[in-house]
Amino acid sequence: LTDTSSRELDQIVGRAREAFAVILTTTAAQRATWLTSVADALDDARNELVELGVGETHLTRLRLEGEVARTTAQLRLFTEVLREGSYLEATVDHRWPEMVPPRPDLRRMLRPVGVVAVFAASNFPFAFSVAGGDMASALAVGCPVVVKAHPGHAELSRRTASIVEGALARAGAPVGTFALVEGHQAGVDLVQHPGISAAAFTGSLAGGRALFNLAASRPDPIPFFGELGSINPVVVMPAADRERGEELAAGLAASFTLGAGQFCTKPGLVFVPAQSHLASALTPPGGVHILLTESISSSFLRGLSHLSAIDGVDLVRAHSDEQEGISAVVAHTTIEVLEENREVITSEVFGPVTVLVSYSSDTELLATIAALDGSLTATVHALPEEDIRSVVAALSDRAGRILFDGWPTGVAVSWAQHHGGPWPATTSQHTSVGTTAVRRFQRPIAYQDAPPSALPIELRDENELGIPRRVDGTLVV
Amino acid sequence: LTDTSSRELDQIVGRAREAFAVILTTTAAQRATWLTSVADALDDARNELVELGVGETHLTRLRLEGEVARTTAQLRLFTEVLREGSYLEATVDHRWPEMVPPRPDLRRMLRPVGVVAVFAASNFPFAFSVAGGDMASALAVGCPVVVKAHPGHAELSRRTASIVEGALARAGAPVGTFALVEGHQAGVDLVQHPGISAAAFTGSLAGGRALFNLAASRPDPIPFFGELGSINPVVVMPAADRERGEELAAGLAASFTLGAGQFCTKPGLVFVPAQSHLASALTPPGGVHILLTESISSSFLRGLSHLSAIDGVDLVRAHSDEQEGISAVVAHTTIEVLEENREVITSEVFGPVTVLVSYSSDTELLATIAALDGSLTATVHALPEEDIRSVVAALSDRAGRILFDGWPTGVAVSWAQHHGGPWPATTSQHTSVGTTAVRRFQRPIAYQDAPPSALPIELRDENELGIPRRVDGTLVV
Repeated sequence: LTDTSSRELDQIVGRAREAFAVILTTTAAQRATWLTSVADALDDARNELVELGVGETHLTRLRLEGEVARTTAQLRLFTEVLREGSYLEATVDHRWPEMVPPRPDLRRMLRPVGVVAVFAASNFPFAFSVAGGDMASALAVGCPVVVKAHPGHAELSRRTASIVEGALARAGAPVGTFALVEGHQAGVDLVQHPGISAAAFTGSLAGGRALFNLAASRPDPIPFFGELGSINPVVVMPAADRERGEELAAGLAASFTLGAGQFCTKPGLVFVPAQSHLASALTPPGGVHILLTESISSSFLRGLSHLSAIDGVDLVRAHSDEQEGISAVVAHTTIEVLEENREVITSEVFGPVTVLVSYSSDTELLATIAALDGSLTATVHALPEEDIRSVVAALSDRAGRILFDGWPTGVAVSWAQHHGGPWPATTSQHTSVGTTAVRRFQRPIAYQDAPPSALPIELRDENELGIPRRVDGTLVV
Repeated sequence: LTDTSSRELDQIVGRAREAFAVILTTTAAQRATWLTSVADALDDARNELVELGVGETHLTRLRLEGEVARTTAQLRLFTEVLREGSYLEATVDHRWPEMVPPRPDLRRMLRPVGVVAVFAASNFPFAFSVAGGDMASALAVGCPVVVKAHPGHAELSRRTASIVEGALARAGAPVGTFALVEGHQAGVDLVQHPGISAAAFTGSLAGGRALFNLAASRPDPIPFFGELGSINPVVVMPAADRERGEELAAGLAASFTLGAGQFCTKPGLVFVPAQSHLASALTPPGGVHILLTESISSSFLRGLSHLSAIDGVDLVRAHSDEQEGISAVVAHTTIEVLEENREVITSEVFGPVTVLVSYSSDTELLATIAALDGSLTATVHALPEEDIRSVVAALSDRAGRILFDGWPTGVAVSWAQHHGGPWPATTSQHTSVGTTAVRRFQRPIAYQDAPPSALPIELRDENELGIPRRVDGTLVV
């Protein structure tokens, strides 16, 4: 048994707290070398890691190689964030006694919150796992990280953790900066541990809600940054359907089966006009999928059986025979049927299925969108002459990223990315992908009338590091 | 009975949701005129409002006049925030297909979260009540506001609400942008109402925790921005105590009795060296205080009786006779006694009392600070030659604002202010005072490959409004 015991967990969190005190004295440039060291070490071990991943996850070698590259590019992007310096939100207000109320000398910046618990996801064994975005963004701003491994790729998690620990040690990070724990109970204990200051989670609604509840019911509740589920609605406007139905069908087929449909951004609910060309052209792609875990497989089959039990939902499967694995599925239904079976039809089914919903009026379409749960993404396909204003407004209320004439399954890691949305897409108003993901693991601190020697160098008048700052209300770059 | 019924609440939230859809189409400049209109109307009605406040709260006319000025200055400061534009965090990433993963055109900005519930505080009947900082910051970024009135100043709340509603209507804000509700049950219903997207609260730990729990246990949890309690530790270093003991005693006496000690930033726990000059010089100021509400009075007396029951805590009262009201109290104890009675001695007692705790070594002082609950502020008094590094590091871990040679009871409203801290000071990593308070009521949205006509003007290439933006990673002012 490899489960982390309660005693081991105490020791791990204790060492992380000690590391935190040391990390508070480090510079951003030092932490950037830690991230680079981790990225280099992962790149060097790519072949070995991908091999482990293929064996444990059934994802393809090509996909996993790409994911390693994504993961190390992500670590390196955060070194740019550190160099640029805006992430500190450094703000200097000089004394202004005539103001109402009088203003003393006040200087504010963000500092790391403390030790962060990261719950790894099953579906991105690199980019949302041990050395993924949550770990990278927490470490970048100076938070030690304790990762709860996903049991779906335990061996890969251990090997990755060992590489990360080695790389951090070589780069001079204090002992305790990073650790891996395993086992369900260790996760439950971790989110409730007094030494943990924030938690990040990517996974299912049920698992995420349980951990969210534990975080909120602590004697001292901590922020829980969860990404729990997303149906990712797509609206195909009539002219686009008419002119580009076949092309859209091909794009949708590729998107909803990418990674066997095991993406949080999979398009799960596609609104098409009546007599849709897209709907006629869409056939579920062939091929047999083995899902990440037994539990995901059984949830998928349960989801399909709930859908097929509804009068007015027709399932089209790529194969009738499913003995060798799971085949892709397209469900066809109408907005009237959806409205009578809202919970089943608008719930995420993780895996290679998408639901086509035909609408016959804008009014019913907008009302149905308005009642959807929150999503990470929402997409509209339209020809330039189509008026999409009300559809975009309705989708913007329900999602964090709005795509135009694209498919949501690619998630770029950049300055403008937002990967989040109203509940249950995420539990917070911050992203889990992109440079602003660091804001989850920072809290402000203000210094009032501090002597320069007591101030962090980022807040001293000299601005030795040359970071962007707001001085007396004006942003100075 | 003036309690808002469940049916009325539904109507109010429904109108607020309708207003939200309209507000989403307004410009920042329009919303700035709303805030200015409210500020002007409150200034015009100052005498009438102050009169109501004196009658209901027992706070002095002078104090309340100052608070109105603070409140209207705060509303006007948010118009500067709107004009300046950084609050949108506008970010433009142009297409970059060679990136790993490939980057589409991505543009991100913050948008209002939806209808915000604001729970008014008792102790600032203007600045943290109906037209206070929570309301101003939510409205500034485009969120309709439903305020739950504090029963301690019900008449003043109604009159303020009526002035706010009139001013908003005159300035062209949609009906439903602002509303007041009353009654305990209305508050409980409000935080659970499906139409509410976020809540802000300033008040007691017990009340705040109850509402926090309701917000977290919704089917769709919403962010709850609570400010719940703070002991505000002060450390007086030996040389400062020796050289400036009398002056510090006078400063502390004024600070802990300001507003009858009913400030969330009242210095409640003051660490002084053994044989402290400050402790010898400090006598509780005379005068009789009438606290804000019956419930605050009885909590205060209960807190004192818990303190006085401890062997090793000596209470010094300004008067022995308390028939006419409450007199200020100084409690004297040692760090050893504190460690044996941690919960009682380190809990906030709202009202005119402060606890002096003598320490005899740095080690015990640092250990005691490290175990304190989170506070809004922490203060150090030292002479320039004293080494305060380890004390500042310990205090920084436990508070959101660190003061040097000052007293925490003044809270400037400015760009660099932070009014927040680890639990229970606040429940979030955002401030409730100062310009960045708006971030509580915003969520990001990203547009991927959007045609310019579908983008908000703030994200179009032209940048017509000239707001600061991050373009391809570079901050452009």
